[in-house]
Amino acid sequence: MKLATLKQGGRDGTLVVVSRDLALCQPVPAIAATLQAALDDWTRAAPELQAVYDSLNGGGTAANRHAIAFDPAQCHSPLPRAYQWADGSAYINHVELVRRARGAELPESFYTDPLMYQGGSDSFIGPRDAVIAEEAWGIDFEAEVAVVTGDVPLGASPEAAAQAIRLVMLVNDVSLRNLIPNELAKGFGFFQSKPASAFSPVAVTPDELGGDWHEARLHRPLEVAYNGEPFGRPNAGVDMTFDFGQLIAHAAKTRELEAGTIIGSGTVSNKQGDLWGSSIANGGVGYCCIAEVRMYETIAAGKPTTGFMRAGDTVRIEMRDAAGHSIFGYIENKVALPAR
Amino acid sequence: MKLATLKQGGRDGTLVVVSRDLALCQPVPAIAATLQAALDDWTRAAPELQAVYDSLNGGGTAANRHAIAFDPAQCHSPLPRAYQWADGSAYINHVELVRRARGAELPESFYTDPLMYQGGSDSFIGPRDAVIAEEAWGIDFEAEVAVVTGDVPLGASPEAAAQAIRLVMLVNDVSLRNLIPNELAKGFGFFQSKPASAFSPVAVTPDELGGDWHEARLHRPLEVAYNGEPFGRPNAGVDMTFDFGQLIAHAAKTRELEAGTIIGSGTVSNKQGDLWGSSIANGGVGYCCIAEVRMYETIAAGKPTTGFMRAGDTVRIEMRDAAGHSIFGYIENKVALPAR
Repeated sequence: MKLATLKQGGRDGTLVVVSRDLALCQPVPAIAATLQAALDDWTRAAPELQAVYDSLNGGGTAANRHAIAFDPAQCHSPLPRAYQWADGSAYINHVELVRRARGAELPESFYTDPLMYQGGSDSFIGPRDAVIAEEAWGIDFEAEVAVVTGDVPLGASPEAAAQAIRLVMLVNDVSLRNLIPNELAKGFGFFQSKPASAFSPVAVTPDELGGDWHEARLHRPLEVAYNGEPFGRPNAGVDMTFDFGQLIAHAAKTRELEAGTIIGSGTVSNKQGDLWGSSIANGGVGYCCIAEVRMYETIAAGKPTTGFMRAGDTVRIEMRDAAGHSIFGYIENKVALPAR
Repeated sequence: MKLATLKQGGRDGTLVVVSRDLALCQPVPAIAATLQAALDDWTRAAPELQAVYDSLNGGGTAANRHAIAFDPAQCHSPLPRAYQWADGSAYINHVELVRRARGAELPESFYTDPLMYQGGSDSFIGPRDAVIAEEAWGIDFEAEVAVVTGDVPLGASPEAAAQAIRLVMLVNDVSLRNLIPNELAKGFGFFQSKPASAFSPVAVTPDELGGDWHEARLHRPLEVAYNGEPFGRPNAGVDMTFDFGQLIAHAAKTRELEAGTIIGSGTVSNKQGDLWGSSIANGGVGYCCIAEVRMYETIAAGKPTTGFMRAGDTVRIEMRDAAGHSIFGYIENKVALPAR
């Protein structure tokens, strides 16, 4: 099924069930007022939400009487605020490029021990909201896949962890590149360099993805457009060194995870043989962040030439099924400067 | 006023107002069912909670009819789960010792740019709950002061940030020392090395602290006992390089903070002239974590001799007012091994 959160009814918004074709939606206050409430009580709520979903898709009439037109522009992120947002770096190609661009080797352990950072989750922006940031901070997007988990016990195996995946969605993990070097040099990881992220209007259950979801990976191209031009379409199921079960198990190694935890894949990145052939213009699958283009430029020409985002620049992130239909609706964030 | 959360009524527990002497408490479902709900709507809720508090302290009778005995052992952390937990390192002495123990210099910028890490906040343990961890992970406590904020806009000044402090509490920021070196070497900060933290049974408004709260610092000794023996009593108002306003402003530099954000002080640590005189047995103010003792041992004798916590070891953290009364109730966590 497909779920979304409208920007109304309080800080956590209003949960709606969305029809498969993203045309209709329906608030479900009698089942769960918010997505977090549904996740808190998933065993009870999920079948009730599924019944509404089936009805919305044309299988029934009772629910349809309450259906309204679905407008993704009215959506907040499915969880407008969450108790946890932890982002992995499962596409090692992305990590390898970062290192290669600065002449460093990739430690062997990076292929067995996932990189993951604890992100801020108290106040996400909506899928169509502006990214508010100073240009000097080096504003970049990172297009990723993310999952929402149920409760996961401490020490869960990757297999058990994969079973705890409740929902799948897309994310724009906004990054402030010019703040990263100093911040990581301090040794405590990202903080100011990772402002509020945006998630896709719609979150879907894994069963909704059919054969595109297997081995705890989502096997579809992730489409990124930058200022209206195609920028990337790598397949999220390719070159993902760690699957979502492994990422969740990593997070749960020393503590239990509570329902509503969001785990990200890291920037989707496909390994491509020829550096210059990797952009979409050159027939490649392109990139999911500006930093990666700059790494290619650095490796090939000694320095980056593509700049980061400026005020008014827009990134759009979307994924379509095999028939060409949008699965999650699209994220579209435009950069705006902070009020002074 | 003083607020606490009982372990009943769901994942977020049940908010109670607690009398100043910690003898009585009262659920307040008509005002706010949970502490997060009160923080979400603080302007409305705070005066109503204050009226109950005044009544509980003997000023009235209407509320007292609903008062029950307050039992800190029935408490969860004031926020059993939170949307944000970010921990600073405001006591530079602690950071300096870590560096000195490994022969490294402290960068000058550490005196102007706070260290802060994003912690996991989805599932805290209660103030009297066990710390579940493997001994091989190097289990340590860190006694700290923490504040809970209201909404803080992006770019807030330290002065404005200090005004957004709603509540003050204590925290045991449990740390897994043997996992830290490898994790920090990966460059993305703490994750597995910081399992669930525990907070004091009671959170209090700054006005409740009277003259002990000024310049956004709490000027009282933080008392730590380890297996029943006094271990530390440094004054939390001394040697705190960054006040809570500065720590909150650091967190809000590139993103707004939503109500219910918890900001920690870092391990409380007073700079003491003589290494050997610093333990309580030697007349010093002692330590708020085992790691600090081990750093002193390393600096003085070349290697640490004090071990980390083992199963059954217990840490107790408390703060008393000038009259000797417990302000927040005490945290007491015993180590237990994970189920196998």
